[in-house]
Amino acid sequence: MTIEGRDYNIYVGKEELSLLPALLLPYKKVMIVTDENVAPLYLEGLKRELNDACEVHSHVICAGERSKCVKVYLEIVNDMLDSNFTRSDAVVALGGGVVGDLAGFVSATYMRGIDYFQIPTSLLAMIDSSIGSKTGIDLERGKNLIGSFYSPKAVFIDTNRLMTLPREQIRAGLGEGVKYACLMGGEAFDMLERGLSDYDDFVRRCVEYKLGVVEGDMREAGLRRLLNLGHTLAHAIEAKKKFEIEHGVAVGMGIYFMAKAANANGELCQSELERVVKLLEKYELLERISEIDVSELFSFLRADKKSYGDGIYAVKLEKIGQCRVEKMSFEQFEDYVRGGCGR
Amino acid sequence: MTIEGRDYNIYVGKEELSLLPALLLPYKKVMIVTDENVAPLYLEGLKRELNDACEVHSHVICAGERSKCVKVYLEIVNDMLDSNFTRSDAVVALGGGVVGDLAGFVSATYMRGIDYFQIPTSLLAMIDSSIGSKTGIDLERGKNLIGSFYSPKAVFIDTNRLMTLPREQIRAGLGEGVKYACLMGGEAFDMLERGLSDYDDFVRRCVEYKLGVVEGDMREAGLRRLLNLGHTLAHAIEAKKKFEIEHGVAVGMGIYFMAKAANANGELCQSELERVVKLLEKYELLERISEIDVSELFSFLRADKKSYGDGIYAVKLEKIGQCRVEKMSFEQFEDYVRGGCGR
Repeated sequence: MTIEGRDYNIYVGKEELSLLPALLLPYKKVMIVTDENVAPLYLEGLKRELNDACEVHSHVICAGERSKCVKVYLEIVNDMLDSNFTRSDAVVALGGGVVGDLAGFVSATYMRGIDYFQIPTSLLAMIDSSIGSKTGIDLERGKNLIGSFYSPKAVFIDTNRLMTLPREQIRAGLGEGVKYACLMGGEAFDMLERGLSDYDDFVRRCVEYKLGVVEGDMREAGLRRLLNLGHTLAHAIEAKKKFEIEHGVAVGMGIYFMAKAANANGELCQSELERVVKLLEKYELLERISEIDVSELFSFLRADKKSYGDGIYAVKLEKIGQCRVEKMSFEQFEDYVRGGCGR
Repeated sequence: MTIEGRDYNIYVGKEELSLLPALLLPYKKVMIVTDENVAPLYLEGLKRELNDACEVHSHVICAGERSKCVKVYLEIVNDMLDSNFTRSDAVVALGGGVVGDLAGFVSATYMRGIDYFQIPTSLLAMIDSSIGSKTGIDLERGKNLIGSFYSPKAVFIDTNRLMTLPREQIRAGLGEGVKYACLMGGEAFDMLERGLSDYDDFVRRCVEYKLGVVEGDMREAGLRRLLNLGHTLAHAIEAKKKFEIEHGVAVGMGIYFMAKAANANGELCQSELERVVKLLEKYELLERISEIDVSELFSFLRADKKSYGDGIYAVKLEKIGQCRVEKMSFEQFEDYVRGGCGR
């Protein structure tokens, strides 16, 4: 199945990857960037598929967010220089969000930009990070502090790859999944409630939704902020817990607090609040919710001046399938969220 | 005088800089990036002019190509993080090509891109590097190996600043100046022959020419290659001389060898060759030409596989004001250039 974006196509399905070799024919060389978890599963197979199209190189990084740093970025760039990659060669990002963001930033900046292709292998990357052209790496002071908006030439999503993922990784992806379900409502929400037997349909809906939003607002000036539902509190939860809670789980918790706040504020009705909470529980996103004291989160937001400057764009969940962005001062946001927790 | 580009305007003249404060009003903060040579001349004056528009910060780097590196890039980024710069703040690049390329790359990548303004202070930056949206930094393995295409919001060119430049810097800029004169021919060439009493008119012609070329071909696929007249040999000359010959002077030498080759090849007539050589001599670009043995340059080109892959796009000077790009193998290019030197 092909989802046609303005700048590039997204191919969803097992068979679709067979289109990649033809797309790589114009390039002399390709560098596959992947990590040590994904490499044993898919690297050799992908190399075999691409070998007839062009000269195939690979660079395997350590798994995890720590690899999204300047050091590993420069290692990949230097590896490509050693192998005489020119601006008319290409990169393939084979992996989850870390590999996609990092390989995307390498592609955005190597000799001022070379073409790249995304093959996301985690649910989080399939429905979220591989779509929207965001690339970036972390600095000591925080995540994604340098990066750029740079679109891939194509994205290949094969949800069969999810079957090989450990349970925690699927759960982390479903935090973003619940976010999309809340934003879209309707059948997308119902599907998650019923349980996902086949991921393809749900992934396609998320991708189409996200693509529609980001194409209307590439640089995050307005509409794109909707995608931050649950994320403001999630960032604070991650910081408070020193990043030992996965991003997707923190997003689930953030949605929980925003849903409670909306309900207390007379926006989200009781029955819909219950549906949202039940969905978060079903996907095991609230197992550690008792560890989070919401009143301790606001100091993290206030300290993060570079992200929030003079206030917060709160994404309010007014109904399932209907969210709204509202700019608030820190005080307003704190009052709003505390209202939902009765503190 | 205003030159309207597709994405941004270029203002040429002394009075035009007074437009900058109004353009900066939408930003809360601005970071002026400059170097230790330019700062004593212009930094305090610029700060005074901008102080009413927004909060003004500055970052002064060491002068010279060595500052165009990852270390200094990260120092500027971290300085901006320390000062809580957000994506809706801005950068002003006040200086020559190094400052422009470096501050441009900071702007292209800081939190995935923030707005920036160019105030070039060297002739080279005014007529060449500040136009065309190229940003970048050097790695140990070579120049401009990482970077991006990222346009400024506006460029402010005040040629009066050239009066404060040391003679060698003007000469380096005139290497690119002769290049533009050869590409444009006509009055632009005549002006340089007569001698530049007032730089404004010549700079305006160069800017308009370059803007026309790059807007037709931002990512250097075809037309933009014309701007590399003299540059292939210049890069080899710089490498051979371990970068102790300025880029602009090396470009002048490169044009000299290409003009001689074109003449030997029956393309550039004798009288035009003489005009070109005389112009290069007038601007003191050939003073060290006897140090260059052209036959020693080709090994540097062959070694630079990342730039030249499978061949060279030679820019042939067929007439003053008429150049043509031709793809050649290394052997063809070597034969062509050697032909001009009778070796």
